[in-house]
Amino acid sequence: MPSRYLSFRCSVPWLILLLETLLLIRFVFRFPDVGNTYSPSSLYPEFQDVNHMVIFGFGFFLMVLRRYGFSSTGLNFLLIVLGVQCSLLVEDLLVFLGVQENKGGMRRLAEAVVSMTAVAISTGAVLGKANPVQLIVMSLVELIIFYVSRCINRTFLQVPDNLTLMHVHLFGAYFGLAVTSCFPEPPPGLDKNRSTPKSDLFSMLGTVFVWVFWPSFNSILTDSKREAVLNTYFALAVSAVAAFMLSVLTSKDGKFRMTHIHSAVLAGGVTISYTAHSIQHPWIAMILGLLGSVITILGSHCLQRCFNPAFKLQDTSGVHFTFGLPAVLGAVASVVLCVVEEGISTQWNDLSSLGHLIFVDVGAFCQTISIALITGLITGLILNIKLLKTVHVSKYFDDQFYWEFPHLSVGF
Amino acid sequence: MPSRYLSFRCSVPWLILLLETLLLIRFVFRFPDVGNTYSPSSLYPEFQDVNHMVIFGFGFFLMVLRRYGFSSTGLNFLLIVLGVQCSLLVEDLLVFLGVQENKGGMRRLAEAVVSMTAVAISTGAVLGKANPVQLIVMSLVELIIFYVSRCINRTFLQVPDNLTLMHVHLFGAYFGLAVTSCFPEPPPGLDKNRSTPKSDLFSMLGTVFVWVFWPSFNSILTDSKREAVLNTYFALAVSAVAAFMLSVLTSKDGKFRMTHIHSAVLAGGVTISYTAHSIQHPWIAMILGLLGSVITILGSHCLQRCFNPAFKLQDTSGVHFTFGLPAVLGAVASVVLCVVEEGISTQWNDLSSLGHLIFVDVGAFCQTISIALITGLITGLILNIKLLKTVHVSKYFDDQFYWEFPHLSVGF
Amino acid sequence: MPSRYLSFRCSVPWLILLLETLLLIRFVFRFPDVGNTYSPSSLYPEFQDVNHMVIFGFGFFLMVLRRYGFSSTGLNFLLIVLGVQCSLLVEDLLVFLGVQENKGGMRRLAEAVVSMTAVAISTGAVLGKANPVQLIVMSLVELIIFYVSRCINRTFLQVPDNLTLMHVHLFGAYFGLAVTSCFPEPPPGLDKNRSTPKSDLFSMLGTVFVWVFWPSFNSILTDSKREAVLNTYFALAVSAVAAFMLSVLTSKDGKFRMTHIHSAVLAGGVTISYTAHSIQHPWIAMILGLLGSVITILGSHCLQRCFNPAFKLQDTSGVHFTFGLPAVLGAVASVVLCVVEEGISTQWNDLSSLGHLIFVDVGAFCQTISIALITGLITGLILNIKLLKTVHVSKYFDDQFYWEFPHLSVGF
Repeated sequence: MPSRYLSFRCSVPWLILLLETLLLIRFVFRFPDVGNTYSPSSLYPEFQDVNHMVIFGFGFFLMVLRRYGFSSTGLNFLLIVLGVQCSLLVEDLLVFLGVQENKGGMRRLAEAVVSMTAVAISTGAVLGKANPVQLIVMSLVELIIFYVSRCINRTFLQVPDNLTLMHVHLFGAYFGLAVTSCFPEPPPGLDKNRSTPKSDLFSMLGTVFVWVFWPSFNSILTDSKREAVLNTYFALAVSAVAAFMLSVLTSKDGKFRMTHIHSAVLAGGVTISYTAHSIQHPWIAMILGLLGSVITILGSHCLQRCFNPAFKLQDTSGVHFTFGLPAVLGAVASVVLCVVEEGISTQWNDLSSLGHLIFVDVGAFCQTISIALITGLITGLILNIKLLKTVHVSKYFDDQFYWEFPHLSVGF
Repeated sequence: MPSRYLSFRCSVPWLILLLETLLLIRFVFRFPDVGNTYSPSSLYPEFQDVNHMVIFGFGFFLMVLRRYGFSSTGLNFLLIVLGVQCSLLVEDLLVFLGVQENKGGMRRLAEAVVSMTAVAISTGAVLGKANPVQLIVMSLVELIIFYVSRCINRTFLQVPDNLTLMHVHLFGAYFGLAVTSCFPEPPPGLDKNRSTPKSDLFSMLGTVFVWVFWPSFNSILTDSKREAVLNTYFALAVSAVAAFMLSVLTSKDGKFRMTHIHSAVLAGGVTISYTAHSIQHPWIAMILGLLGSVITILGSHCLQRCFNPAFKLQDTSGVHFTFGLPAVLGAVASVVLCVVEEGISTQWNDLSSLGHLIFVDVGAFCQTISIALITGLITGLILNIKLLKTVHVSKYFDDQFYWEFPHLSVGF
Repeated sequence: MPSRYLSFRCSVPWLILLLETLLLIRFVFRFPDVGNTYSPSSLYPEFQDVNHMVIFGFGFFLMVLRRYGFSSTGLNFLLIVLGVQCSLLVEDLLVFLGVQENKGGMRRLAEAVVSMTAVAISTGAVLGKANPVQLIVMSLVELIIFYVSRCINRTFLQVPDNLTLMHVHLFGAYFGLAVTSCFPEPPPGLDKNRSTPKSDLFSMLGTVFVWVFWPSFNSILTDSKREAVLNTYFALAVSAVAAFMLSVLTSKDGKFRMTHIHSAVLAGGVTISYTAHSIQHPWIAMILGLLGSVITILGSHCLQRCFNPAFKLQDTSGVHFTFGLPAVLGAVASVVLCVVEEGISTQWNDLSSLGHLIFVDVGAFCQTISIALITGLITGLILNIKLLKTVHVSKYFDDQFYWEFPHLSVGF
């Protein structure tokens, strides 16, 4: 009986209820050493921007499948608001365990929303293949592991707190990829994983939103906001222009390809995320934006032709080349820039401190990516156990198994 | 002749012209004791948010009918901008009569835009049934009565000014319901009052906009902005999560239902509107958000099955359970919280002052809701006189009677 | 071979690459006297608004053609981000030549984005007729000439810097009109230059965005922000209301016409742009908004019936009456208001200074419009040489010649 098979009445509500009860208990019986929720803060306008970008922007950015619009926006919304609350819980626990300092209410919310970008990105990788229960479990596991990974970076590698948060794209993309590698591939004849002009337009709408708000995203938690905003804008502008250029160069018949534009206009923002606050010359930001766009579009060709078929990966909305590769590039660039700057300031004399710098940065990068891949793989395996009602491949990419469609005269 | 029947050439333009002339006269011959329009203010960013939310968010939120997209956004836009101007006029009159203090230009505009939410909500109740003339008359009457109701609350019950404004959801929903009860019901076979996946997506777009900007809405006129923003965000987050949970629990086959999501994600914002600035513990805000969501979804079932058929009501976009019931809950919660807080601070000794507090809050609530219902009923009766060219029930829910459709080759 | 004819592989990428290389060189080898990019500034929130309005708002505002949605948003995006970067280059050159003072980074970016509105408007005039190469060349030429025209106004006519920027609507509209007059007319039977209800809805979405953010646009570079914001809001509100009124009055059957609403709601913002910061009475702003709306709707009738056929003009999205005529009205109003104010303050004694004032304002206006028309005509002629691969008239207004459509099973 397919109808019973796809009913989530016994799983989704109780899972959500359990989480909400935990959250309420957390707020009622506050840990005594947790700070005041309503401490003063002037972060509200930037928080508003980032909130808008993550909930609205990513929701519509993910609307690339022809029959998956409700789930793209709706489930993204659910995962973000659920995750923001859970990340407050996780952070409380970390403060209680003494591995994290205490922060004001608005700053914690802002960090929580920024962290949820990882979940939004991972959702893009399993888009249409995971059911709501799987998505909720995945986002909770991912969130906790991301906080743990940040903690390791901060405690053992002395990475500054706001930089640990910028690993969010790297973590989200590779966690999502590892999870999606455990899902069975859709049958080749399935045409529901294609886009229509209408879904592409909605996705463009979301992309422009994400693009416009990206400077707020990169500058929200840094002290040198001015540099972060301007560098991010320059990187985004160059990567947007380069996206159109490279799309014409690489596509058949010399036309623009919408999926190129969707992914490559954002590449500059991802690439610059580690270094936006510290770059002192706009041209460096611009070159990073250009390289981000190049790696995204070349990556999209190589990955879709060679890598993905070889590894039997199916990365629905292309998070590997949209967020993963530019984040790797950004991490590499951050090491290079840091070393060059440090080297110039010490006139290349203090090589041991340089070595330490490289060790820390590369260490943080390797730790993040390996934790993402390993835990992603484990999460993927857990998600595919019978208990979580995996969706049959023939039912991939379809709203109708999760949403009521009273619009249709035929009953389901 | 149906074409002549539906021409508004002799009504809409002259009505608008009359109003605009009045407004111009108001601004040219300013009352001498009315304050400076350009007084300093730092409200602009929040005003921008609220303006965006009311004009864009509600415009697309109301786009739930399959053939009523132009009117939903277009007429909402018209009513809001017309109403904002008229509310300046009404406020001038109240200042002139000495029942209201004088305020700076930006603050007045902000109050006017917030007040117009009542009209946007009422429009949702008569969506597709009222023609533009009826809508303009309704919104003007509603606006004036809402200002009068606020005046009564402020003058006789000593309710603070920014709290009187928060009755806007309660007033809008019950006024709209009373008006819609006077309109004849559409014939049962009419399928134009259903949504399509496309209209649901646009409505989702508007809902997310309203959701994101709600903290600005609740905090714009209060002094303790920080508390208002954070409490509203917590309430909204919990009600959004609970909306998905309850939708699965209550719908057939355990699927999500889009109309549940549309209405219940906003319930938290409505419920918390009276108390957002005064709640001192996030968990109270979260519980209110949860209760708001519960009452909305249970209400949507009870009302649509029992109440609406019994009273022959047809509440097109469900404003009763989206805004009405959560507002009632919020008013009750505000009394309870206020009494508990006062009781604790006086150690339950000063029962007479407690009684006075309850009297004032319950009085303001009863006064608002009864004025809304009575004047709504009268307005509904007035709107259905012949003069205003009521629309025949077979022509409900259709853009083509108000908008030119050059897209169609067939002429109308 | 049509496929080869329309390939832009040999033109678009190299053009973009050349520009980007120039930009990078500009930033690497900075002119020594150019100021610090990261100078302090508090413009970010307004810059965000204007950026959002120009990229998102205008992109969707231009989506009026049924088969041109991808190009409307995508190419608008490309032109804006490319133009913003080029305008930094042009401004550097002007600073180097000593005809412009130096400004901080964020302010330059803000000016660049505001200047790009001219390009967005001109794009509207040639919408669907110019290919990407032509659009890029046009926007670069237009940008340079607009900066030169501003320079002339500033240097020879002593117009204040932020006022020279407000000629952006006038310049953009008449430049675009002159360019479009050089393009061959589409065949009469072509139905691709019509809109669908869906494209009208997206265009409405963009229009509301532009409308909401217009107060930020008019106030971003002025010192008296408060007046600019409030006057712009009043003018916009009145013109929006008047748009609905006049649409019913002038259309067949007394219905609303969507194209009227799209263009006339914005007329107030354009009309007030010269005087928003200096008007001291809201009623003047309101009258200007009303007149702007009247001239737009009357203009749309006269132009489309008499002027355009006579001059064989085809102004796809009606920029002449949406931006051109209101800007002319605004310029006239600014002269009148300036003269009246000056006359009253000098009690009409100092007629020579009045004459000088009129000379300067009228001079700046005539210089701008004549430069726009002449250079627009020349640009139009240049754009139609063989080298730039002009599009055949039968292929106008169609996304499929610029974008890949993998959605279609049929190959192109």
